[in-house]
Amino acid sequence: MENCIFCKIINKEIPCYKIYEDEYTLAFLDIAKDVDGHTLVIPKKHCTNILDADEETINHLMHTIQLVSNHYINKCGYAGINILNNNNACAEQSVMHLHFHIIPRNENDQIYVYPKFPGAKYPIEDTLKKLKIN
Amino acid sequence: MENCIFCKIINKEIPCYKIYEDEYTLAFLDIAKDVDGHTLVIPKKHCTNILDADEETINHLMHTIQLVSNHYINKCGYAGINILNNNNACAEQSVMHLHFHIIPRNENDQIYVYPKFPGAKYPIEDTLKKLKIN
Repeated sequence: MENCIFCKIINKEIPCYKIYEDEYTLAFLDIAKDVDGHTLVIPKKHCTNILDADEETINHLMHTIQLVSNHYINKCGYAGINILNNNNACAEQSVMHLHFHIIPRNENDQIYVYPKFPGAKYPIEDTLKKLKIN
Repeated sequence: MENCIFCKIINKEIPCYKIYEDEYTLAFLDIAKDVDGHTLVIPKKHCTNILDADEETINHLMHTIQLVSNHYINKCGYAGINILNNNNACAEQSVMHLHFHIIPRNENDQIYVYPKFPGAKYPIEDTLKKLKIN
């Protein structure tokens, strides 16, 4: 898609620190330098996020996420993996091309990925009524 | 699996606030009361996490994650979704049965899911050499 930075990386108009590539997906290092090993996994087919992606695209993406995660654990000395995905701007999605973050982890790495939540505002029974799929 | 709390929920030995269920997966509200709408999606087939799950199990799980996410956006008034998954104890996995967290989001909800990272310790070129899949 025009003016999509991740499509430009896929099309090699912009270089990347490539970890892995196959017919359907690309994995590369995030250049934010916020944490060592921060990896992005994206589909080559443009979609905005998980909400509009087709099932085949998601499955290809998960295949690569699992492959890269196991490589980091089995070959690169990491002991754990966080996987994060943000959908839409209000959920902190910054680039509007579907991407999953992989954060490789180790014991006592002083990295804290799981969020500090503010506490629920409503009784869980009310939330259940609101969200339940019949 | 014996002594797995999520297997007990699947087997109805422990009740849950069920959002959705199909042949392969179950989605239910987290009882931590940490944030409204916090949902867990799990496969009925026990596996520890993404590292040992088979591809079919992951694909069933993603199907349900997408279905629930789109339901929250299209039917329940939410505007965004975060998806989180922790693998192994050092990456903050607390229950050793594969699960993805869904956090529904809205504009200005004062929820912050994306982590505050400590900054990379090593040059990105060194990290690339360490992690690249040949």
